Amino acid sequence: MKLYSYFRSSAAFRVRIAINLKGLSYDTELVDLSTGAHLSGKYKTVNPQGRVPALIDKDKILIQSISIIEYLEEAYPTPSLLPSTMEERAWVRGIANIIACDIHPLNNLAVLNYLTGVLSVGTEQKLEWYRHWVAEGLEAIEKMLLENSKRKEFCCGDEPGLADICLVPQVFNAQRFECDLSEYPFVERIFNSCMKLEAFDLAQPSKQPEAERFK
Amino acid sequence: MKLYSYFRSSAAFRVRIAINLKGLSYDTELVDLSTGAHLSGKYKTVNPQGRVPALIDKDKILIQSISIIEYLEEAYPTPSLLPSTMEERAWVRGIANIIACDIHPLNNLAVLNYLTGVLSVGTEQKLEWYRHWVAEGLEAIEKMLLENSKRKEFCCGDEPGLADICLVPQVFNAQRFECDLSEYPFVERIFNSCMKLEAFDLAQPSKQPEAERFK
Repeated sequence: MKLYSYFRSSAAFRVRIAINLKGLSYDTELVDLSTGAHLSGKYKTVNPQGRVPALIDKDKILIQSISIIEYLEEAYPTPSLLPSTMEERAWVRGIANIIACDIHPLNNLAVLNYLTGVLSVGTEQKLEWYRHWVAEGLEAIEKMLLENSKRKEFCCGDEPGLADICLVPQVFNAQRFECDLSEYPFVERIFNSCMKLEAFDLAQPSKQPEAERFK
Repeated sequence: MKLYSYFRSSAAFRVRIAINLKGLSYDTELVDLSTGAHLSGKYKTVNPQGRVPALIDKDKILIQSISIIEYLEEAYPTPSLLPSTMEERAWVRGIANIIACDIHPLNNLAVLNYLTGVLSVGTEQKLEWYRHWVAEGLEAIEKMLLENSKRKEFCCGDEPGLADICLVPQVFNAQRFECDLSEYPFVERIFNSCMKLEAFDLAQPSKQPEAERFK
């Protein structure tokens, strides 16, 4: 399979983790967001939305990180990235969607560029915006983790899954923008558990080949 | 089942449609976003994120509209809201997530209030922001619809499903903010097909009991 990826894209980061957890291998096709390569006509023939990631598997193009991970779960069911009961799956997807729908979309590059460009928002206000949505989302997630009796090493049980896959890149982003995470001890603990695993570690931004160029 | 809902919430609108399409019935518990009821301690014991919708089914609390719909699909499989092949399911989830992750989160009430409140963005600039994200997302969706050989009356085939469930409330929002939709003929056509169905029609904002109060 081929993954259209960019080291700092946390949506691509999610898919890198998922592929690694499934024990699959992939070729990376760099889409350099820093030069606008995602908005090129060439890339838009792959993904009309012009966003990363996109995954090609068996000649099919897949877009949107959560959809891609649901596809991977169906196409390569073992090891599973979702719990065995439908109630737990709904809980896990709830955590994943708090991040994928209510934190990350507000803080991605396109939005930050709109804020500073079109709306002339200053650096400090941009940071406040960023931290506001991170805090609002992680506060809810911390509470949900606290109340979940199935929380163990990972968000839901002893094996990492979809919720952890979304949480880790979000924590990376939060750290990069120096958000205060001290109020989210369960989030931090799960983050640390995940980062001990090769599947997460090898997927992190600094370990992608193109990261070298940005040092 | 009990749905915590608000007539204008397009995420709640999605779940209302899904429940109707499944032929299930539900009681509505109004969470009045206009008075900040979603941020009350009482509602946050239901949904720590303080957003609508939330669904209670068999004493389990479910949050996040897409997670809720995936749950409904698992708990009440007939009629199905997802296609029969995993490639088509991925395509449908891709459309759903363009809306749920990249259009709607940027245009919901919390974000618009942040723009006009904290960032002192004016009315015209707020409208431009709104229309920008609608146009960017619907442009990609229109292209995906154009290229999908399975598109018929609905996004993917002759029966409505998850993609249509997300598309219709998004079009309602776009119309409310007077976005120009003339460049998205497939979107409009599918919207019209959906709105002929009672499941969609009865779920629309103006047909919710609390809508009366806001006339």
